[in-house]
Amino acid sequence: MKKYAIIFGGNSYEHEISVVSAITIKKILKKDTIFIFCDANHNFYQIDEKNMKAKYFASKEYKKSDELSLKKGGFYKKALLKEKKTDFDILINLIHGKDGEDGTISSLLDFYDIKYIGPRSEGCVISYNKEFTKLYAKSKGVDTLPYEILNKHDKRETKFDYPIIIKPLRLGSSIGLSVVESESDLEYSLDVAFEFDDDVLIEPYHNNIKEYNLAGIYTKDGFVFSMIEEPKKEGLLDFDKKYLDFSRSQATNQASLSEDISEKIQENFKRIYKDIFKGAIVRCDFFEKEGCIYLNEINPVPGSLANYLFDDFNEIIEKISQNLPNNRKISVDYKYINSINAAKGK
Amino acid sequence: MKKYAIIFGGNSYEHEISVVSAITIKKILKKDTIFIFCDANHNFYQIDEKNMKAKYFASKEYKKSDELSLKKGGFYKKALLKEKKTDFDILINLIHGKDGEDGTISSLLDFYDIKYIGPRSEGCVISYNKEFTKLYAKSKGVDTLPYEILNKHDKRETKFDYPIIIKPLRLGSSIGLSVVESESDLEYSLDVAFEFDDDVLIEPYHNNIKEYNLAGIYTKDGFVFSMIEEPKKEGLLDFDKKYLDFSRSQATNQASLSEDISEKIQENFKRIYKDIFKGAIVRCDFFEKEGCIYLNEINPVPGSLANYLFDDFNEIIEKISQNLPNNRKISVDYKYINSINAAKGK
Repeated sequence: MKKYAIIFGGNSYEHEISVVSAITIKKILKKDTIFIFCDANHNFYQIDEKNMKAKYFASKEYKKSDELSLKKGGFYKKALLKEKKTDFDILINLIHGKDGEDGTISSLLDFYDIKYIGPRSEGCVISYNKEFTKLYAKSKGVDTLPYEILNKHDKRETKFDYPIIIKPLRLGSSIGLSVVESESDLEYSLDVAFEFDDDVLIEPYHNNIKEYNLAGIYTKDGFVFSMIEEPKKEGLLDFDKKYLDFSRSQATNQASLSEDISEKIQENFKRIYKDIFKGAIVRCDFFEKEGCIYLNEINPVPGSLANYLFDDFNEIIEKISQNLPNNRKISVDYKYINSINAAKGK
Repeated sequence: MKKYAIIFGGNSYEHEISVVSAITIKKILKKDTIFIFCDANHNFYQIDEKNMKAKYFASKEYKKSDELSLKKGGFYKKALLKEKKTDFDILINLIHGKDGEDGTISSLLDFYDIKYIGPRSEGCVISYNKEFTKLYAKSKGVDTLPYEILNKHDKRETKFDYPIIIKPLRLGSSIGLSVVESESDLEYSLDVAFEFDDDVLIEPYHNNIKEYNLAGIYTKDGFVFSMIEEPKKEGLLDFDKKYLDFSRSQATNQASLSEDISEKIQENFKRIYKDIFKGAIVRCDFFEKEGCIYLNEINPVPGSLANYLFDDFNEIIEKISQNLPNNRKISVDYKYINSINAAKGK
């Protein structure tokens, strides 16, 4: 059986929910998992399982843990004579938002040849920037809601009728997001969103629209899907509620929906996932209105990896581990330089 | 005056042309530049200026140079007592293709807080994947040629009339690229392209279309453009010719074109560049047909940084150095974990 490590934390507005996510996953994964914490300053620490408690991080006690350095092939702990490699086969990326979902961590892991479960850089950039998500979805024949982008230097106005929803263009979670009921609230909501990004995305807001979440992976035997959940909406998820949402480890209930809608949601998921999300456990959030499905967002590192949507999460981890993308290595033979030097008589 | 370092090499089909690019730039940049070589195995070496010759790399002599390790804030050389930081202010990314233009190096540099000239991860992913380039260009109101994508598992056919041009979806340069005159040559050209990527891009090929290249940067005072060049086409640029093209250090001649076309090309460049290429010296290659401009490709790390298109390349380097994007740092205060623990009476 493979040995897993989890990397969590990061320099991100979602740093704290990543800590909560990791603590949640600890309860679910089979024993012997390694925990690697990336603090807000980008230092790495190996955390003993017994210390995987929120307070250990909030109190900065984690600094007493062994510091790790990232090098070719893995993470290394300083030892008296020789550096010691942290022992795991596959790393699970559980950093939400910046660092984890913007392509940073994936680039580091690819560069240093570390096998990992999580999105690759292409998938990250496409899902992290909400406009790119829409352009990509459209190219795959997946519908999204109409939108406009406002830069902080642009005139503060919208082409849409109210209510509208405003989101920072590049963040995960619900941070900086607000529903604006009328023009008089526009200014304030834009101020909030521009705290987090220089660009915001504006969409019409539909209060009565249905929401469905579906997670899945691509394995050697094709797609494996989770159940489809209709998330509870008590107004809009604010950050506190979302925070608690990331600590979910209890199985949820399958939404009651027609086979037709169910299949449409799965079909849309497949189009989005393939091939740029290979290697990741992805949760896609969809809207449904009058039988039509719209992609809302792609979460390539969903809260607690959406474990609560799967019957047997350990099996999901095993299955995806068997089908990670190849990191194509290129052999450099200096053929051109040698042939030019040969022509020059060198 | 700022001190510059150049990083070149990488695990890329364009490794060798990156070496050639770096040797070319050495001749142009003012003295005291540091050279950091990333070999095909992702080891870093500091190369003495006197050793900046193609043969030094092809012969593997470079392995005698001081090895560097990448850590927070910079590259470090092992010294007897304490590791010594390599002394430079700004790193210039001169790795072409994989690693340099796919978002890998930018992620490493951002993560470790190293200031650099070069594309950021968003710009890389958008320019490296030729379909994403087209989707992005369209969203900015910039035209591109019609296209289709073929995966290696798809049926080998095209909707376009011949001749067509086939390109690996994700490579830079002209590697794996071919013009197909008739259906009988399709199979072979696809075999070649699929050597380099699982997906290929197919476009109609226009033999008589005009090509124009324009480089530019965004500075505190707005855009600074290079001259517009009409590259010489002797048939199609193959890799050998392209290879020599990367060693250009001689000023080229301004293409003779109308003010109207010139302005259209600059306008299209601005739309593409802003804001995801901030910090990079970008060369965009355009087609012109009957007064209409089409984007062909975005080179966020062009061969020898397109120095030959600028009158004063050292000034370009200085100007872009003054307007590098901020790497937004997020302060983590554990507010949520603390408030939840407080509520629990902990």
